[in-house]
Amino acid sequence: MENAQPTRYELLRVLTQTAAGTPMGTLLRSFWQPVAVAESIAPGQARALRVLSEDLTLYRGENGTPYLIGARCAHRCTILHTGWVEDGQIRCMYHGWRYDGTGQCTEMPAERHARPDLVKIAGYPVYEYAGLLFAYLGPAPAPAFELPRKPALEDPTRLRFIRYQEWDYNFFQGTENSLDATHVSYVHVWGKVSRFGDEITTALPELSYEETSAGIRQTAYRSATNIRISDWTFPNNNHIVSPGARKGDPWSDNATWHVAIDDEHTMRFAVSTAPSTDPETDKRFAEDRLDGYNPADHYRELFEEHRIPEGIGTGQVIASQDYVALRGQGVIVDRSQERLGQSDAGIALLRRIFLRELEAIREGRPGKAWTRLSEAVELPIQVPG
Amino acid sequence: MENAQPTRYELLRVLTQTAAGTPMGTLLRSFWQPVAVAESIAPGQARALRVLSEDLTLYRGENGTPYLIGARCAHRCTILHTGWVEDGQIRCMYHGWRYDGTGQCTEMPAERHARPDLVKIAGYPVYEYAGLLFAYLGPAPAPAFELPRKPALEDPTRLRFIRYQEWDYNFFQGTENSLDATHVSYVHVWGKVSRFGDEITTALPELSYEETSAGIRQTAYRSATNIRISDWTFPNNNHIVSPGARKGDPWSDNATWHVAIDDEHTMRFAVSTAPSTDPETDKRFAEDRLDGYNPADHYRELFEEHRIPEGIGTGQVIASQDYVALRGQGVIVDRSQERLGQSDAGIALLRRIFLRELEAIREGRPGKAWTRLSEAVELPIQVPG
Amino acid sequence: MENAQPTRYELLRVLTQTAAGTPMGTLLRSFWQPVAVAESIAPGQARALRVLSEDLTLYRGENGTPYLIGARCAHRCTILHTGWVEDGQIRCMYHGWRYDGTGQCTEMPAERHARPDLVKIAGYPVYEYAGLLFAYLGPAPAPAFELPRKPALEDPTRLRFIRYQEWDYNFFQGTENSLDATHVSYVHVWGKVSRFGDEITTALPELSYEETSAGIRQTAYRSATNIRISDWTFPNNNHIVSPGARKGDPWSDNATWHVAIDDEHTMRFAVSTAPSTDPETDKRFAEDRLDGYNPADHYRELFEEHRIPEGIGTGQVIASQDYVALRGQGVIVDRSQERLGQSDAGIALLRRIFLRELEAIREGRPGKAWTRLSEAVELPIQVPG
Repeated sequence: MENAQPTRYELLRVLTQTAAGTPMGTLLRSFWQPVAVAESIAPGQARALRVLSEDLTLYRGENGTPYLIGARCAHRCTILHTGWVEDGQIRCMYHGWRYDGTGQCTEMPAERHARPDLVKIAGYPVYEYAGLLFAYLGPAPAPAFELPRKPALEDPTRLRFIRYQEWDYNFFQGTENSLDATHVSYVHVWGKVSRFGDEITTALPELSYEETSAGIRQTAYRSATNIRISDWTFPNNNHIVSPGARKGDPWSDNATWHVAIDDEHTMRFAVSTAPSTDPETDKRFAEDRLDGYNPADHYRELFEEHRIPEGIGTGQVIASQDYVALRGQGVIVDRSQERLGQSDAGIALLRRIFLRELEAIREGRPGKAWTRLSEAVELPIQVPG
Repeated sequence: MENAQPTRYELLRVLTQTAAGTPMGTLLRSFWQPVAVAESIAPGQARALRVLSEDLTLYRGENGTPYLIGARCAHRCTILHTGWVEDGQIRCMYHGWRYDGTGQCTEMPAERHARPDLVKIAGYPVYEYAGLLFAYLGPAPAPAFELPRKPALEDPTRLRFIRYQEWDYNFFQGTENSLDATHVSYVHVWGKVSRFGDEITTALPELSYEETSAGIRQTAYRSATNIRISDWTFPNNNHIVSPGARKGDPWSDNATWHVAIDDEHTMRFAVSTAPSTDPETDKRFAEDRLDGYNPADHYRELFEEHRIPEGIGTGQVIASQDYVALRGQGVIVDRSQERLGQSDAGIALLRRIFLRELEAIREGRPGKAWTRLSEAVELPIQVPG
Repeated sequence: MENAQPTRYELLRVLTQTAAGTPMGTLLRSFWQPVAVAESIAPGQARALRVLSEDLTLYRGENGTPYLIGARCAHRCTILHTGWVEDGQIRCMYHGWRYDGTGQCTEMPAERHARPDLVKIAGYPVYEYAGLLFAYLGPAPAPAFELPRKPALEDPTRLRFIRYQEWDYNFFQGTENSLDATHVSYVHVWGKVSRFGDEITTALPELSYEETSAGIRQTAYRSATNIRISDWTFPNNNHIVSPGARKGDPWSDNATWHVAIDDEHTMRFAVSTAPSTDPETDKRFAEDRLDGYNPADHYRELFEEHRIPEGIGTGQVIASQDYVALRGQGVIVDRSQERLGQSDAGIALLRRIFLRELEAIREGRPGKAWTRLSEAVELPIQVPG
């Protein structure tokens, strides 16, 4: 019965499965995606990294160049990140086999008739951008590093803050939340916070969603002086603008990515940039993005004591609220139990696009050729009165 | 081979399985059972609750009325207990859908053409009694709240103490232990405690068990001046009398229930009442029942260090001893490996009754119509010399 | 398809499976093996013990004799080690059934017509040797306690230190590491330690391996003045000599065993002995073997922070390095993913021997009759210049 129609459960479950060989795993592997904060790894150091259910070794050569190769030595399968970085290569601590940044073995010291040229483990290209390390985990050749670029992220005159968190849930719940403007009026009024709270109000917006060359344009119309248009880029980046901590403070650009560690864990990257003005305003901006609090470490406090954390930046409060909503769906929500409404139009469009692209993969056809938004329609925008 | 005879393992395993749709799950769902301590939930508050492998939301309306509904919002499946109680209803924190205490949806604020009347999640009746919240999780209509009632529990002139613990074992092990008078002579002589220890002595009792209209009458005859008759009520309540901390102190009535959270975790409720006498005696009674120690949090101390806790009330010492005996059988004991003897007559009767009632469920026949003991035979009794 | 050839994965997986009834489980059960440090159990005390995926009760009678019997009472399956030792027997704390050191039931106090002679649980012979308790878990009769004996371990004039650790990995990874002389030149130069580090140097040795009557003779030839011959005894003991902490200090004999708790956890026993000289030298020897640090409790420090522990003895540093190499292969390494080379000759021989012996077990033939090395070829030796 291989041709039997999948059940609704099976159809939607595919959206959450990211291992190599799965349709979603194949789709996600055809894009550059952030896999680490650039500062999380120093020159000459190595660390373990799990992305899309795949175990890897991330290291920087002694000159700082980042490399991403397979997790284990081909010899006796020991983890490589506990080894030694030598120049641009890494040596296994068990028997000294050495690999370059493409995963090519280059030395097997105890072997009399060594043929390292016959031994290769996985190796993936890495691109450093906006304070993050992006990787491409698909088959060669890698596409040009174009789709993830945003002028606001690469303007060297702007302030930049990066936040990284790991949450114990499936990445697609976070991705869907980016296309769900309604949630803002409920999730984020809990312990209504600062000017972000004032701006959003509880007025339910008029929503519209439109597929673009890069992803989805999402428009939330609350009044003629309150229109937010955000820029969602396929397959897992959202880009919005937010007001500053006080009236008059500059607005910031905020780009977030949800990248699967595996199907039950997700890396969340957030890059915020804003124009630098005076030291006091710059400080407020920084404080609002202070790192160090991860709601996933505070499940009990958030879910059982219903306490929203105090003394942390607005960005962290918002992340905590989202954590309660999204982790509250379960680690992997069973979408066959849902009842979507007309206000879920963004989620419905998102799924239609993903299911269309997954269908192409299953049938061996090329998917959509996503391209950056042209400067003419550059997003996101907030229409002030 | 659907008609193949079940193995002994399969036959007995059924006694431990409580999820909806299992025979035991169906049987247990046809009775009112305690699911929370009344004080564990304040007016206007909500909490998660898992009973019989089913996830639920317990909340009190702003006027204090308790309600028990399904765990998740029908919209996007987010957990409801993180939402807001409004009057007698609860609102989901993700997109604001609202439910009343029967699980009926009453508002979907972001939907332009909302039809909340078409959306309903689970909802179960709740009855507050003797400091506990009882619920009926079966199909409507709920039976009258009669079987669990005991005069000693509802007499407002008596002192009352409530103890609640969660143990990591199957509820049926605790239920069987209630019908096992022999264990008292071994389990509870460990670190032989106070007058309870003196009363029980290590003399092995003559035992007899008889099915009543409400459950099982258990008689342990140790001597003409030491006869204990206890009142076990189907399906999971035991009611005994115990001596006070000192000679002359009044005896107390102690009712305990073992309710499955799921097949590997159990809620244990104990309600103790006694006549109030003078302040000092009343204080001793209270101290003997001091809460705050749960043996399930002290596995290492009890099982590896063989240390019985000090400085806790007699009730807690007894609970700790039972924990070592019952958790010591494993999380779910494999009853096909046992060797019952003639001294296990109470357990044998208990299983015969349960297997008989489960057979009725499997065959679609009505089970026994259990009714409260008549006042004429009111139990338990302790025959003094 | 029962006769289908096993895949390489299946063939090698058998080496890691130790439960009763598996080929490897049967093989390991035909040898005396250490199961506890003798001092870990006092007279009159009992503790739980898991060996080869089998749950057991280890206790000492009141006169100190050690016994090893099944984990659970035959009556209601409660764990026995929480009971009471009485003379040379142990009594279950639940209903008082009593067992002797062979697992024979000797009393069922609450049973009117008790027949304890009909009830027996598992019971295994125990032999105290070199500060360890050895047990034989196979069918009777037990072989003579001969194969594990080493003169250096039983010489009462020598100093003796014992180290015990539990690691979260499969025992066969540790066993293979004993026959892998190359790893020393990589694993143990990390934070190059003391004279052990100097002696080994990073010069890769010429290796040769030869099967003996007792196991495998392993020769690592680094130079005419640096030849190490070690004595590996089937199925899981390695015996080497090591230099003292300072030039001139006596060399020590070090015997290690890796015994499966279950397939994912391993007991590691190390017995070190050396001639006693002067108090200061004796103290150095003791300090080098100080116990109390288990690398398995420091996964994060070792694997993520790449920090080798400070202030611990050389023996512990070496154990930590091995832990990073061996636990780094995973809890159970998938040997079908390896690429062995000519330098892995010892591991290849080890596996050939094991697979040969397992084949005999599968075919019901007797395996090799392993016997102690004759004194004429006594090992290990270190050839000095």
